Amino acid sequence: MSPYERITSLHNPTIKAVRALRDGRRRMKSGRMIVHGLREISRANASGITFEHVFFCPTLMNPTSQQLLEELRTRGAPLIEVTQPIMESLVFGDRTEALVAVARSPHRELQDFRLARPNEPPLVAVVEGVEKPGNLGAVFRSADGAAAGGVIAADLRTDLFNPNVIRASLGTVFAMPTAVTTGKEALDWLRSRGITAYAARVDAEKEYWQADFTIPCAIVLGNEATGLSRCWFGPAVEAIRLPMLGLADSLNVSVTAAVLLYEARRQRSRTSENP
Amino acid sequence: MSPYERITSLHNPTIKAVRALRDGRRRMKSGRMIVHGLREISRANASGITFEHVFFCPTLMNPTSQQLLEELRTRGAPLIEVTQPIMESLVFGDRTEALVAVARSPHRELQDFRLARPNEPPLVAVVEGVEKPGNLGAVFRSADGAAAGGVIAADLRTDLFNPNVIRASLGTVFAMPTAVTTGKEALDWLRSRGITAYAARVDAEKEYWQADFTIPCAIVLGNEATGLSRCWFGPAVEAIRLPMLGLADSLNVSVTAAVLLYEARRQRSRTSENP
Repeated sequence: MSPYERITSLHNPTIKAVRALRDGRRRMKSGRMIVHGLREISRANASGITFEHVFFCPTLMNPTSQQLLEELRTRGAPLIEVTQPIMESLVFGDRTEALVAVARSPHRELQDFRLARPNEPPLVAVVEGVEKPGNLGAVFRSADGAAAGGVIAADLRTDLFNPNVIRASLGTVFAMPTAVTTGKEALDWLRSRGITAYAARVDAEKEYWQADFTIPCAIVLGNEATGLSRCWFGPAVEAIRLPMLGLADSLNVSVTAAVLLYEARRQRSRTSENP
Repeated sequence: MSPYERITSLHNPTIKAVRALRDGRRRMKSGRMIVHGLREISRANASGITFEHVFFCPTLMNPTSQQLLEELRTRGAPLIEVTQPIMESLVFGDRTEALVAVARSPHRELQDFRLARPNEPPLVAVVEGVEKPGNLGAVFRSADGAAAGGVIAADLRTDLFNPNVIRASLGTVFAMPTAVTTGKEALDWLRSRGITAYAARVDAEKEYWQADFTIPCAIVLGNEATGLSRCWFGPAVEAIRLPMLGLADSLNVSVTAAVLLYEARRQRSRTSENP
């Protein structure tokens, strides 16, 4: 006999409720998130998320998923064994997952926002009005790689813990200090802390490599189509651009974020070896 | 009466043949590509592509598409007027397009490969084994923005003119000098021209900003999951890495490409103003 609760019916009410979370509107209304992928579940777990349910399917398990399941069991996560048809009904598209977890979406408020890496001058990414979850997730992945201290998500047009944000971020969205707020409040937050806002704007005259990213600074990125809102056009903001030397007039927002975050990391890591 | 050929039946054989091109395998077998989007069609046209058919739908036209249609007409492109239901049957998903064009996929062979920007030391992007058309297209977009001289697509696992490559590249895939070849031949090509191969590898010891990109060089990127093939592990190749300072152990291939291509552009544009 399995030591866990076991569900075998596709019509079980818990299963039906979780399946409904695949729909964006119902998910946001429920205040919950659905986490797929071993790496993603593991990073959510490591960041202190408390799962409401963790579903696992024995026939899809391998040693890696078995080990994660063991960790989750030790932490007291409520594990539920399900059949393969049930597991397949919970995931997106034709993915195959051995585990799927559900939790309340954590709140990420500006008043609780504390940057990581307190021993270096603040380096923050601000994304305003981003629509595509894949882009937002990719910004988290780059911010994680370049060791930004945090990400401010302003006037988001997706949910922060959208499954595609989680996936594109490789689960780093759980670990990165994050605040969900408005563009105006993000700017106020930066100004009150003496953090220079470098806004990526196609109309900027200054090329990004002329900016000093070794000072306390934020890299500010706007909506995929419409760019940044007016509050990033004031005198307190420094506009920078990536030179666009070909036919296209802009880069993808996640690509722009990575170029700027890594330029900051380069400048901050400079040694005599650099050319 | 319309001055153009006009098709009103969804069952018209030409329409059925074009509709079949939405399927990857049938498209590759046919040796044709299908181009959606005004910008993309315009860039294909500007690069000298000869269209076999250009379908347009009067009820979906605006001044911009009308102007493009006029340019295509002047160039002698075979224009065919279609109804809105037919146009909707030709596009992908729920996109709305006023024009869709079909052409033979151009061949991009290494023997014909000539770099753009002959007045500066060669800067080439090499992508090997890339699977996702969106990633390949994004590499073209960044290579265009950073003014690389060309892109070598080695051992591709997608078609170069896949609709998602075209879209993610914003049509720059048509204008950028490109060669489709193998990894081995790409390396030989670089070596025979004295172009240093900088391979982006997670196992590299050298951080990318320690590399000199002002010399004739290539930025070499591998498959999304498995990285580069063995031929990029020899002594003739310099391995470089992006420092990964967080939880995730790699960045997306298109993001890596952009960081490296823009670092090359930064180094090549250095002036006394730079920090």
